[in-house]
Amino acid sequence: MTRPIITLTTDYGLSGHFVGVMKGVILSIMPDVQLVDITHGIPPHDVFECAVVIGEAIRFYPARSIHVVVVDPGVGTSRRPLLAEAGGQFFIAPDNGVLSMVLEKNPAARVRQITTDQYFLKPVSATFHGRDIFSPVAAWLARTGDASNFGEPISDYFRWPVPNPVRTGSRVAGTILRVDHFGNLLTNFTPENMPEVFSDAISFRIVMGAGNITRKVNTFAEAAEGEPVILLGSSGYFEIVVNRGSAARLLNARRGAEVTVELGITPDSDDPKRASANQSGRNVPGVPK
Amino acid sequence: MTRPIITLTTDYGLSGHFVGVMKGVILSIMPDVQLVDITHGIPPHDVFECAVVIGEAIRFYPARSIHVVVVDPGVGTSRRPLLAEAGGQFFIAPDNGVLSMVLEKNPAARVRQITTDQYFLKPVSATFHGRDIFSPVAAWLARTGDASNFGEPISDYFRWPVPNPVRTGSRVAGTILRVDHFGNLLTNFTPENMPEVFSDAISFRIVMGAGNITRKVNTFAEAAEGEPVILLGSSGYFEIVVNRGSAARLLNARRGAEVTVELGITPDSDDPKRASANQSGRNVPGVPK
Amino acid sequence: MTRPIITLTTDYGLSGHFVGVMKGVILSIMPDVQLVDITHGIPPHDVFECAVVIGEAIRFYPARSIHVVVVDPGVGTSRRPLLAEAGGQFFIAPDNGVLSMVLEKNPAARVRQITTDQYFLKPVSATFHGRDIFSPVAAWLARTGDASNFGEPISDYFRWPVPNPVRTGSRVAGTILRVDHFGNLLTNFTPENMPEVFSDAISFRIVMGAGNITRKVNTFAEAAEGEPVILLGSSGYFEIVVNRGSAARLLNARRGAEVTVELGITPDSDDPKRASANQSGRNVPGVPK
Repeated sequence: MTRPIITLTTDYGLSGHFVGVMKGVILSIMPDVQLVDITHGIPPHDVFECAVVIGEAIRFYPARSIHVVVVDPGVGTSRRPLLAEAGGQFFIAPDNGVLSMVLEKNPAARVRQITTDQYFLKPVSATFHGRDIFSPVAAWLARTGDASNFGEPISDYFRWPVPNPVRTGSRVAGTILRVDHFGNLLTNFTPENMPEVFSDAISFRIVMGAGNITRKVNTFAEAAEGEPVILLGSSGYFEIVVNRGSAARLLNARRGAEVTVELGITPDSDDPKRASANQSGRNVPGVPK
Repeated sequence: MTRPIITLTTDYGLSGHFVGVMKGVILSIMPDVQLVDITHGIPPHDVFECAVVIGEAIRFYPARSIHVVVVDPGVGTSRRPLLAEAGGQFFIAPDNGVLSMVLEKNPAARVRQITTDQYFLKPVSATFHGRDIFSPVAAWLARTGDASNFGEPISDYFRWPVPNPVRTGSRVAGTILRVDHFGNLLTNFTPENMPEVFSDAISFRIVMGAGNITRKVNTFAEAAEGEPVILLGSSGYFEIVVNRGSAARLLNARRGAEVTVELGITPDSDDPKRASANQSGRNVPGVPK
Repeated sequence: MTRPIITLTTDYGLSGHFVGVMKGVILSIMPDVQLVDITHGIPPHDVFECAVVIGEAIRFYPARSIHVVVVDPGVGTSRRPLLAEAGGQFFIAPDNGVLSMVLEKNPAARVRQITTDQYFLKPVSATFHGRDIFSPVAAWLARTGDASNFGEPISDYFRWPVPNPVRTGSRVAGTILRVDHFGNLLTNFTPENMPEVFSDAISFRIVMGAGNITRKVNTFAEAAEGEPVILLGSSGYFEIVVNRGSAARLLNARRGAEVTVELGITPDSDDPKRASANQSGRNVPGVPK
């Protein structure tokens, strides 16, 4: 008999008692569980970042894993607690968009509103539903294995569309979905949604701040020192990276910045009028800065 | 058969080998254990902060959980190692006050001095008792389940009183016990120790730095943007908070700062002479800054 | 039946999905495992720091523990993946020196090149072998227990020598191997490699920046406030430390700085010409700054 897996993803940080309390609640209800921290380092209240991180993390988990996802600035208000079944796994989260990426990748997902409050810790606080609602529901789900115990399916849950790049003539406008721990910039370009970009058959240019990116590589080590390049990252997105360095720092780039690719640009062209203006502070719809 | 729970709370940080070494020691003695990190992010040597965090964290753990608590600036000196039984749980820690909150909440606690050095890793270092004393004792306790094996009860252990607010006329003076990860300020006001404060029947004013706090809310979302308010937090203390922001940053407030509440103040009063002077640098006894 | 132990040591940080993904991969292959994080806080790409940390951490792990060590700036290039058996434990890492300390302490280690790619996640990415190679190999090793399944022994793996101090007359030149979480400076002086240093029979002086260190203590608490002293640390190296403070900050010292000890110096001598010049920016061979 394998122990059920419960993962935790929050913006609670690691300096206080919040995460330890959630684990105490879970272990009190379901002692024989495999607890895994995905991350507790989501920036405070950053629902979008959390949606991207949990969307990536769970691709490699076994069926029936239970993921507790709590970035919850609306805690204590009427926003609903959700229990979703998607891709054979379970997700327990507030109804604020934090599961957008998970649900986008799993159109057949079933989403329930958690209403059976006999599973909650009483009295339910107005500020810590990670402790009082989400953790005990996860532990009881691990014990019973049956999501239908916790509430009825709903279809009007909140979800935003994952932003896709937009092509206009020889220009393709995308965005930076996330800056990772190394300073790599995850764009929303993928081989699927924009195959003509970075197809090897065509030259391109991306201008970001003071940097000109005209080269695609396969590994970090192919880039020269201090050279920003683009490569296909492990999440399936193209990333702007610097070998042994931080592209975010070099290019002064952040989440939500626009990334414009110009196709058919010869690499030695240096006409700045042809380059895309970038880092203009404009925000691509759907990606909060 | 449920695996015993051993939790770890330290100021060792997460960047080096200290925490991993403690876990290796424990697993070498007692492989079948549920290890839980409460936090390793206690500021270095900050015994008071650790006392507050562990006091909160353990309220939700099952009976017989074993908590290893190591913030230990006196490591290697004559300060004693302790094994306490409190509220049905076990605590292994240096005798420096780090269990003050736990012991305050559990007056029937039994505290032993750990003297049976056959359980220690030899030679015992002068600088890492988390490895040489506290971890192996926790692992052996998890194996044997019997605290009386480790030493005799004592009553002269070190403990400071948890500071309570003090009322003088219409003023109530409290303090900030802790600043959490979100910048929320935990005061030492509770519905139990000071029911007339924030009773809904009476208006109040708290002045902190440039901020005037005159409103109590039930959820973060009720506060306006940038408005500091007070709410009853999940730990049972009133907290000064800012919706989607950091009260600590907005009010430039820190642990140990005095919080004076003036009762019966009409919210639109703006006579600064009636307001409490605050953030004066004065330290409330018992709360080190 | 005890669950196999798999530990993780990386520079992946704790803010994203990388670590959670590795655990998902491992649990998908081998659910009944004890996962332990040594640290994910190795500075990005810092192979030397990682080599020191893993060399210390694993001294206290039980036989047959499996350690996944991934600081891997050459990911995706021809650098080889290794599986080492050393001291009865297993190590899975890139062939870039990250196991240098482990292999130095275990001359009888057997090192294999991992070649059996049926264990890898396909397609193998060019940027995340922690996910695609190292984690699945660790999980399959935990299942099978037989390292010989994964490739043939090799002897030409990369490893640098652990730097030893050098004595010239009354001067002994060493270096700072590591700065720990508390700001303690781990030197490469040990009672074994340089017994005449700090032997209690001889006076000494170390000059670092503005600080003069002439006193050896046994515990942190013996040092006066703000006094830098030297003590024998828990890892077996002499450390330059400050009681309740950071020696790194006080002395403005970093990893790789030269530490010169002058023997037979009377403590009240203040002739700066006799003191060693230090913090000169010179780098001791073998210790990258």
